[in-house]
Amino acid sequence: MLPARAPAVILVAPQMGENIGMVARAMANMGMRDLRLVAPRDGWPNEKAVAAASGANDILTRARLFDALEPAVADCHLLYATTAVDYAQAKRVIGPREAAAAARAQLAAGRTVGVLFGRERIGLLAEEIARASAVVTLPVDPAFASLNIAQAVLLMGYEWLLAQGDEGELMPFVTDLGSPPATRGEVLGLMDHLERELDAAGFFTPVHKKETMTRNLLNILNRRDLTQQDVRTLHGVVTQLAKGRAGAGAR
Amino acid sequence: MLPARAPAVILVAPQMGENIGMVARAMANMGMRDLRLVAPRDGWPNEKAVAAASGANDILTRARLFDALEPAVADCHLLYATTAVDYAQAKRVIGPREAAAAARAQLAAGRTVGVLFGRERIGLLAEEIARASAVVTLPVDPAFASLNIAQAVLLMGYEWLLAQGDEGELMPFVTDLGSPPATRGEVLGLMDHLERELDAAGFFTPVHKKETMTRNLLNILNRRDLTQQDVRTLHGVVTQLAKGRAGAGAR
Repeated sequence: MLPARAPAVILVAPQMGENIGMVARAMANMGMRDLRLVAPRDGWPNEKAVAAASGANDILTRARLFDALEPAVADCHLLYATTAVDYAQAKRVIGPREAAAAARAQLAAGRTVGVLFGRERIGLLAEEIARASAVVTLPVDPAFASLNIAQAVLLMGYEWLLAQGDEGELMPFVTDLGSPPATRGEVLGLMDHLERELDAAGFFTPVHKKETMTRNLLNILNRRDLTQQDVRTLHGVVTQLAKGRAGAGAR
Repeated sequence: MLPARAPAVILVAPQMGENIGMVARAMANMGMRDLRLVAPRDGWPNEKAVAAASGANDILTRARLFDALEPAVADCHLLYATTAVDYAQAKRVIGPREAAAAARAQLAAGRTVGVLFGRERIGLLAEEIARASAVVTLPVDPAFASLNIAQAVLLMGYEWLLAQGDEGELMPFVTDLGSPPATRGEVLGLMDHLERELDAAGFFTPVHKKETMTRNLLNILNRRDLTQQDVRTLHGVVTQLAKGRAGAGAR
């Protein structure tokens, strides 16, 4: 009844084991299996997580541990960052229903979809959100917007589960672009390349603005769904520009 | 932004204070305020509920305590019973999205909507479900269908919140019937009347089948949305039949 593949749930720096366990339970409720943990505060495995999982133990057992965000999302073609409140970055913001429909289309095409959930209280950091393809804002009463991680996972999973029942309208988001979409790893690799060359070129001045400038660039790269061909092209652009600079310096 | 009125959340015999607190939090997230507790196992108020409410204390403070289901639902025009799995009773079964749309239409017409959530592990009893207008089945992976009460409340609240954004398709469910819809209290009053008279008439034989027979009758009464006029008419029918019996006995 449920498709074998579902979006991966990626918890970024989760703090309490209980919450990780409740996330596993919510995932099991909604037929999701792929849990990834990025630098959990209290280490891994965690007994409190097992106690809170109410039997969803196989998800915890198979959870993969990462020490940084990049390797955890490298295989994702579509990566969502969840936030409970509107987020002002220059990034596509959609609701969970639209996100689920797009995820379904990507999964049906054999691609990998990941959803980032932030740490307790402060959520995802700006530079983490910048790594996603789009922001998913979960609708809540603005007067009481604090949503437990497991509840956020449950709502995303619920929409994902319901999306299985809808008949195949593809979102504009996944229009055939003539080349397979790039993975997060490919986009971030491009960003690394760009950043390295910009650094060498003295682009990041003043230095204390580098973080913001990098994030803005990443948002620009992420604003469209880059294909693998796009990434290759942009690598070429960066390489060429860097060569030009070196050539100019040698002149 | 949020309408002043929202569905009431009615917890039937909740066991753990923590769950009541988490329900209050989920309600606050989704803009719901009216919490009703029917015979909570550990009494009320409950300190563990406060600790788990993460600040949604006003909902707990204003929660109303009832010792039985009937008074807790007497004012509801539309009453849903939530179940995590398909329920075989002869009763309308809908999904949370359809339920939220119908609730919205009823609330917009100034009526009262309640949603029943069952006790931990075993959920609602058959005779409790029989008192509702319709069953709402929350979609979950059948391989892992156990949903925490607070998560069930969250999903219903989420659909209710999202339904605010949809433009007004009224459900067939709330078609104008020419008379205001009956409240649960009116329908249950009618059932009491019917049951009393049937008892007197020796209808319930063998006696051990009374529970099932009563439930079936209640389901018949609940299968259509009775108007106040319908209820008056049916009271008249019951009264008349009972008189006829007494008359026959006196003859």
